[in-house]
Amino acid sequence: MKSFMVFQSDFGLVDGAVSAMYGVALSVDGELRIFDLTHEIPPFDIFEGSYRLLQAVPYWPANTVFVSVVDPGVGTRRKSCAARTKGGQIIITPDNGTLSHIARTIGIAEVREISEAKGHRRGSATSNTFHGRDIYAYTGALLASGQISFEEIGEAYDPSDIVMLEDLYPSLEGDTVSGTIETLDVRFGSLWTSISKEFFEQLGIRPGETADVTIMNGKIRAYRSFVTYADTFNDVEIGEALLYVNSMEHIALAINQGNFARAYNIGTRSPWRILIRKARD
Amino acid sequence: MKSFMVFQSDFGLVDGAVSAMYGVALSVDGELRIFDLTHEIPPFDIFEGSYRLLQAVPYWPANTVFVSVVDPGVGTRRKSCAARTKGGQIIITPDNGTLSHIARTIGIAEVREISEAKGHRRGSATSNTFHGRDIYAYTGALLASGQISFEEIGEAYDPSDIVMLEDLYPSLEGDTVSGTIETLDVRFGSLWTSISKEFFEQLGIRPGETADVTIMNGKIRAYRSFVTYADTFNDVEIGEALLYVNSMEHIALAINQGNFARAYNIGTRSPWRILIRKARD
Amino acid sequence: MKSFMVFQSDFGLVDGAVSAMYGVALSVDGELRIFDLTHEIPPFDIFEGSYRLLQAVPYWPANTVFVSVVDPGVGTRRKSCAARTKGGQIIITPDNGTLSHIARTIGIAEVREISEAKGHRRGSATSNTFHGRDIYAYTGALLASGQISFEEIGEAYDPSDIVMLEDLYPSLEGDTVSGTIETLDVRFGSLWTSISKEFFEQLGIRPGETADVTIMNGKIRAYRSFVTYADTFNDVEIGEALLYVNSMEHIALAINQGNFARAYNIGTRSPWRILIRKARD
Repeated sequence: MKSFMVFQSDFGLVDGAVSAMYGVALSVDGELRIFDLTHEIPPFDIFEGSYRLLQAVPYWPANTVFVSVVDPGVGTRRKSCAARTKGGQIIITPDNGTLSHIARTIGIAEVREISEAKGHRRGSATSNTFHGRDIYAYTGALLASGQISFEEIGEAYDPSDIVMLEDLYPSLEGDTVSGTIETLDVRFGSLWTSISKEFFEQLGIRPGETADVTIMNGKIRAYRSFVTYADTFNDVEIGEALLYVNSMEHIALAINQGNFARAYNIGTRSPWRILIRKARD
Repeated sequence: MKSFMVFQSDFGLVDGAVSAMYGVALSVDGELRIFDLTHEIPPFDIFEGSYRLLQAVPYWPANTVFVSVVDPGVGTRRKSCAARTKGGQIIITPDNGTLSHIARTIGIAEVREISEAKGHRRGSATSNTFHGRDIYAYTGALLASGQISFEEIGEAYDPSDIVMLEDLYPSLEGDTVSGTIETLDVRFGSLWTSISKEFFEQLGIRPGETADVTIMNGKIRAYRSFVTYADTFNDVEIGEALLYVNSMEHIALAINQGNFARAYNIGTRSPWRILIRKARD
Repeated sequence: MKSFMVFQSDFGLVDGAVSAMYGVALSVDGELRIFDLTHEIPPFDIFEGSYRLLQAVPYWPANTVFVSVVDPGVGTRRKSCAARTKGGQIIITPDNGTLSHIARTIGIAEVREISEAKGHRRGSATSNTFHGRDIYAYTGALLASGQISFEEIGEAYDPSDIVMLEDLYPSLEGDTVSGTIETLDVRFGSLWTSISKEFFEQLGIRPGETADVTIMNGKIRAYRSFVTYADTFNDVEIGEALLYVNSMEHIALAINQGNFARAYNIGTRSPWRILIRKARD
């Protein structure tokens, strides 16, 4: 069976750009099955592109070919690459930080640079602005359909040379873990942190117990409270805050049937930071 | 042939949640064909989820498996169920009112409770917050691919025990039918009422004749006018109001090439109500 | 192999209308493969529908069946048609101007009027408001699945009788080319003009050389500057304006990593106009 293709971009869906990529891929092989991750990455927001890959990639079968186009440097000298995750999925993307969260959490087994000359579909030489259509979708389709192998994409390079975003890892100092607020669960206003469940468990807080949670906006304290570490939203009252394990197996902070981010005007990434320790008896 | 799967949710498409559900389903069976109804149901809006199912389900082949996730009670004791409509399509959803419009208009032939223990995909036990991915998409894929039968989903219960929303039915008092404004045709501003064509026809108003239409906002009259019951928009002037049969075979109220809801500041559901009677000669 | 179907509309994706069209098509033939161009055409905006077809259609294989529903005249006497492009793709649409850009740039080889009586799916006679579902998706599916031939759709008519939008062509007067701003690259704010690369090249401006660019808002001059005609965004400084060949092989105007339209408050179509000549030495 041929591999699935999954597209992600910051193009939005109001124009014809994504459909042109589909057309290019299906012209390579009409039997390909193509899906979308999201096309609503904010323009040029590499962090968000990286994060959304982590949210979806691990749930797809090995050999699925992801094509992610969030590319502020289109037409410049940043590398184009194809990376194989340790789960076996393949991601085609500019090597500009988009692989960071997958590299951190899943790991990259192998990465190859796409030769732009070889990877360019015929007849697309004039325009230099739409590599998503003319190089990435095209190369992804050759790969997903089996017309080229992963090795034929281009030269391998060291996965430790992949461009990585900063501030990806939580830290433990004394009795306190701290991390960033990586994103909001957009529609429901929960804060999703960079603190994994495993990392958090070093604190020895068990479900039902209480944590002492602080949120900093740079040097200003934006929130401090005692919060239950709950198994389900049902374990706290409506309107009460809770810490819980989100669908990415990381620690998140929410208000049951409310919107935490809006309630306390909390933002994401630098300079926001969350600190958690066990509440003293 | 395998059954189609169709997803609906209030997740939106800006993050990776929907794509994770696709990945889970395609990992169950890579030949499944999966489609979307909409993912833009307003957060927790069960009424809207119920209504949108009615707009799409009847047009799909029998045995199509719909998975609808609008679930304010995730992690609580509400039932998860699979219902078979009288048209033969299957809907997997929390039993929280989402089945109301289908039950009212099409009818539910059979309903079974999903055993959450059996329906949980392996390795997903830690996080309790994403049943759409870990239970519903997974169970739907098992069913659509034929790996389990409808009967194997869980215990049957009485379709009359399904949770139903209130105020679903129009009424006739004397010479007047009344009903709710169930939704707006969002982009065009028409009012779509809970009054079916058949129910309306009790008034004996024929195409081309005039109706006396009142819209109440609780006890306040928000609109009253004589309006033509028209076969097509073309039967009235541009800018003129008309009653017509909408694409769901219900009575709707519009302005030809205008926006009725915006023109008169009309809202939906309680406390809004529309009353129609035949205009006196 | 069956032909692909690709849907475009101004319906949006918040309700069940698009999914109902999918269901109708898949009920005609469950093996059809269906895709979306966009459903975010602004309501009734025929120009935008026409433009987005040009952005995607040429990248799809011959015989792909596009169904475009932007139809302010639904239920009136405008023709419904199926057009075959000179590239071999088929477009089913109301003949209301939606074919303009494809006709201008690719050419229409053949056009046939859809007989609404024959093209109406059974059981859909009552409602007259959803031709997208009841006629276009249905007829498109019959065609894509091979159940009817292109000739069986209805009577042929002269492609030169297709309804065309105005102001589609650039002009050359003396040493100056002028054209319209057809659309904005929505997320990035570039101006996409009606001036093709070939037409522009009559000016003899080569990459790296400077053009004298004026933008008029009716009789008011909204912008004038000397701008580099660049091969890639990388050829100018961040924050500098550039002319370039966009992904549709037309001339576009942008600010490198900025938003040109927002920077100078530029709009699209009439009364906006762009004039370009070679900068004098």
